[in-house]
Parts: sequence; C-alpha cells; structure tokens
Amino acid sequence: MDLIALGTIALDNVKTSSGARRDMLGGSAAHFAMGARLFTKVHLVGIIGRDFPDAHIRFLKKKGIDLTSVVTHNGKSFRWEGEYKKGDYNNAVTLATELGVLVDYAPRVADHQRKIPNLFLANIDPDVQSRLLQLMGRPRLIGLDSMNLWINRKRPSLLRLMKKVDLFVANDAEARSLTGEHNLIRTAKALRRLGPEFIVIKKGEHGVLFYCGRFMFAFPAYPVEKVIDPTGAGDTFAGGLMGHLSRVRRFSERELKRAVLYATTVASFNVEDFGMNKTCALTLARVCARMERLLKFMKP
Amino acid sequence: MDLIALGTIALDNVKTSSGARRDMLGGSAAHFAMGARLFTKVHLVGIIGRDFPDAHIRFLKKKGIDLTSVVTHNGKSFRWEGEYKKGDYNNAVTLATELGVLVDYAPRVADHQRKIPNLFLANIDPDVQSRLLQLMGRPRLIGLDSMNLWINRKRPSLLRLMKKVDLFVANDAEARSLTGEHNLIRTAKALRRLGPEFIVIKKGEHGVLFYCGRFMFAFPAYPVEKVIDPTGAGDTFAGGLMGHLSRVRRFSERELKRAVLYATTVASFNVEDFGMNKTCALTLARVCARMERLLKFMKP
Repeated sequence: MDLIALGTIALDNVKTSSGARRDMLGGSAAHFAMGARLFTKVHLVGIIGRDFPDAHIRFLKKKGIDLTSVVTHNGKSFRWEGEYKKGDYNNAVTLATELGVLVDYAPRVADHQRKIPNLFLANIDPDVQSRLLQLMGRPRLIGLDSMNLWINRKRPSLLRLMKKVDLFVANDAEARSLTGEHNLIRTAKALRRLGPEFIVIKKGEHGVLFYCGRFMFAFPAYPVEKVIDPTGAGDTFAGGLMGHLSRVRRFSERELKRAVLYATTVASFNVEDFGMNKTCALTLARVCARMERLLKFMKP
Repeated sequence: MDLIALGTIALDNVKTSSGARRDMLGGSAAHFAMGARLFTKVHLVGIIGRDFPDAHIRFLKKKGIDLTSVVTHNGKSFRWEGEYKKGDYNNAVTLATELGVLVDYAPRVADHQRKIPNLFLANIDPDVQSRLLQLMGRPRLIGLDSMNLWINRKRPSLLRLMKKVDLFVANDAEARSLTGEHNLIRTAKALRRLGPEFIVIKKGEHGVLFYCGRFMFAFPAYPVEKVIDPTGAGDTFAGGLMGHLSRVRRFSERELKRAVLYATTVASFNVEDFGMNKTCALTLARVCARMERLLKFMKP
C-alpha cells in the first residue's frame, strides 16, 4: 500500500568532525522518503524554491519517489546549516535556518492521492501538518514526528494534532520535554495518553524504546563504529518504520517489531556518510543482511 | 566456585527526590556482595572503623557473606554522602567523602582464601586493588571496576592493573574518559587493547554493551518505572555478573550473555529502593522471574 509523507525538502550545509558539505539534498521529507522507498511507493508533499537544483529533483524521481504534490514557488528553498561537535552526534548545533518558501506554505495534494492509506507527517510546523491531515481521506495509519522547536513554540497545535494520529516518533530529549517526565518508560506512557497508540522513542546510539497498550520493547542501535553525519537519521528511521508498516496488513506485535528493526537498520546506514550518500544506494537485500547482524548483536 | 571481592564497606548518606537516608550500609564491596551472594559463596576483603554498626555486620553475615578478611581498625569507617538531582540518576553529586580507616589500608586475606578461584576488585584505590591481587594465588577469573576519581588521579596504576585482569566493568562516562574515545564500540575495543578480554560498559537506563574478541552484544536495561536510589546499582550489577560466571565452567558466549542478563536484572532491583532494601530480600527465583520479563522486553 502506498505511503504519503509531508515535510521539508531542504538544502543542507553540514559540518562534522569528518568534514563539511554544502547544498546537500536534505529535509525531513526527503530523508524519510529515502528510507521508506525501500518498502513501498512513496509520495512526497512539500515545497521548494526556484533555486532548487534540478539534479536533486531528478535524483528523487529516479529513486521512484512521486513528486506530484511537491510544489515549486517563487523564492528561496528552505535551508538548514548545522554542525555536530566531536562525540556529540545526538545534538546538532543549528548555525542558520532560512525558511524561504516555507513561510506561509499551505500543503496541497492531488485528488488521486487523498485516498493513500498511509500518511506520515514528518517534521514541519504542526499547523502545516494539521492542514494536510484535513485534506486527506481517512488514512488507516497516521504517523507523526516533530521537534523541540514546535514543542516549545507551538505546543497547543502539536497536542491537538497528537490526538488524531496513530503513531508518534520522538527522540528522548523531545519526548521528555513534551511530557515533563524524566523516566523514559513513564515518558512513553505519558505520550500515549496524549493520543497516539504507538509510541517510538529514539535514543540515538542507545537504540529505541517502543510502547503501546499491549506491550513494550527496547532494541539497541546497530553498532556503527564511525558516525560521519547523523543528519536525517531520525527521518530515515521513520521512513523504515512507516515503510514496513505500510506494506503489512495488521499491526501485530511481530510486524511492529519488524518495522522497528528495519527502521534501526536503515538509520544505521544514514549516519555512515554525509547526507544521503549511503541511503541512496541501499537495496532491501542489503538492509536485510545488516538486520541479520543486528539480530545477532541483540540476541540473548 | 567461591568468589572473593575487595572494595569499600561504607556508611552512606543519600538524598534523592524520593527522600533521604542516613548511615545505610553501602560501599562497592557490600553492594557487590548483595548481588553476588545469590549465585555463589562470597568472601569480602575490606576495612571498617570502630564506629561501624554491629547491625550491619550481623546483616552481612546473615546473608551468608564471609567476613573473615574484613578487618576492624581504630578510627572512623569510610563514609560517602551523595545526592541525585531529579531525573539525573546517572550522576551522583558527591557532597562529602570521609576516607577514615581507608587511609593507608593494606588488604589482607586469610591463607585459606588465597586459592579462591574468582576474584573481583570492586571500586577502591587501584594500588589497594593491586596489593590484593599480589596476595592471591592465580585466580581463574579476575574482574575489575574503578571510577572517574582513579581514572583521573591514578591512571598509571589503573592501567598497570588492567593488564592483569580478565574482565573490566565501567560505565559509559568512565569508559570514554579512560580511552579518550567517544563512539562506544570504539571505546570498548580500546578498553580491550588495555588488557582485559571481557569488556562490560554499563549505560544506566540504556542497558549494557559487552565486547570481547569473539563477539559483542547490547542488552537494554530492565524497564524500571520508578528509580528511588541508584547508589550501588553498578556494584550490584557486577555482583550478578561475577556471581554467575563464578559458578560456570566455561566462559562461553551463552554463559557470558546469561551473566549480563542476571547482572542487569539484579541491578534493576537495587534502584527500586534505598540502599539494599530491595536486594537484601532477593532470591534467585525472583531474579529469574524478572529476567523472563526482561527477555520478553528485548525479544525481537
């Protein structure tokens, strides 16, 4: 079953202890798509400016991603510039953000896409996320991601939106800040009380905690020895997660666990190089091979 | 097979967001023993002052712990006073340390204990740890723990000692500070190059990473919802780890994993109440029952 995702499509400038790159294809929706495309047909909803490199567009199309609802607007594309300090890959230091065409962006979606059964609202203003949700039919699965910026600045909007989604992904700092809890199990429970049935808390190198009413589990991250650039790892993770869930009939414990394992594995490739250098060349076969190693790594 | 452990036997004053307790039985060796006694006969090597409450001594004896080599010296017992800030149970704020009889302590061990095959050097001055090691025969398994204080102040002593031990346990901050590495997999590998074959890095609520030449694995922590007092959790963990390894014939992958699961489980009880309130009443049956739940929590 198809999957549609709203989020940012960005030009990223990133500095890490391994080097620096400029004008990379980035953004929450683009990274999400790079993970999700391995599992199902992905449609993007987003906006770019006139300055957006044609090569990036061709690249996304070549990866099989449907760009029908990516609009080009007069003005500059969204830009993010960030840096990671050595050893602290969990926290990007944002050096600059240029919203460009994101200001006043109202998402639109083609008529034939309104019935797409799986929807992911990748990180973007929660009011924009809500607007897309209103345009859609009744998706069978709605996933949501956000970030500290919106948790702090648009909490009421985010809380209203959370009541309408099935799955919420957040990193541990965001989850704690949203709930005011410290203990991560209590944090997960508090998030579920805000609406979503499935709670996924990402802990970077420490792996992931999953919680729902029926069960909970924790998996480690795949043991990556050299992290080059973690930008987009969370989005790629969400892509693997939603990608697998989009192709299964039932959200059984087995399939939810499998989705988290796929998510963990595709995200591990993301961090091993700048931008999408690694994830763009991935095949499901390579993901499965590494997932076997992950399963061995966590086997009791 | 018996297990002998050197470390501190302390009087602890602890403040957490759940309350405060004074003059609790504490110290690295005492907490270690409380975990290890569930698996094998434990002998302690340590020192106390004349002021040490008789009730604490009777308590340890009642738990089956051999105190032949715990000497009483004129002077005050070792005291530690610490506080945990709400939500940060990984870092104790030390308010006061009174070394008392620990100053110039030279460990002694009864003749019949020199042949005990399993030795754990719980956290104490590495020069004291080395001295005990010299007194012992050739233990088949030597485990070592330390802390940031010794990593900073007595690094050469600690590094010399590490060359002589089989197993090293450390929390992630200590492991990073000792090796200068940030990535935890690289940290584990760097620790192994310092001598010990088995490296166990504890990550608090995030679980544990195990590394040796043949394999590595990561397990989550048991999901404790209300942490009351984490003091001694690391020592209790080491007790479960060494306790199980002391009773197995071969350090196979299966038994090493089992040891880490036991360690994780007994440590989870430790944090659920002040001092040894929970661990003192533990039975192996209760540990095994919770371990089953841990296995379910981490099952892919």
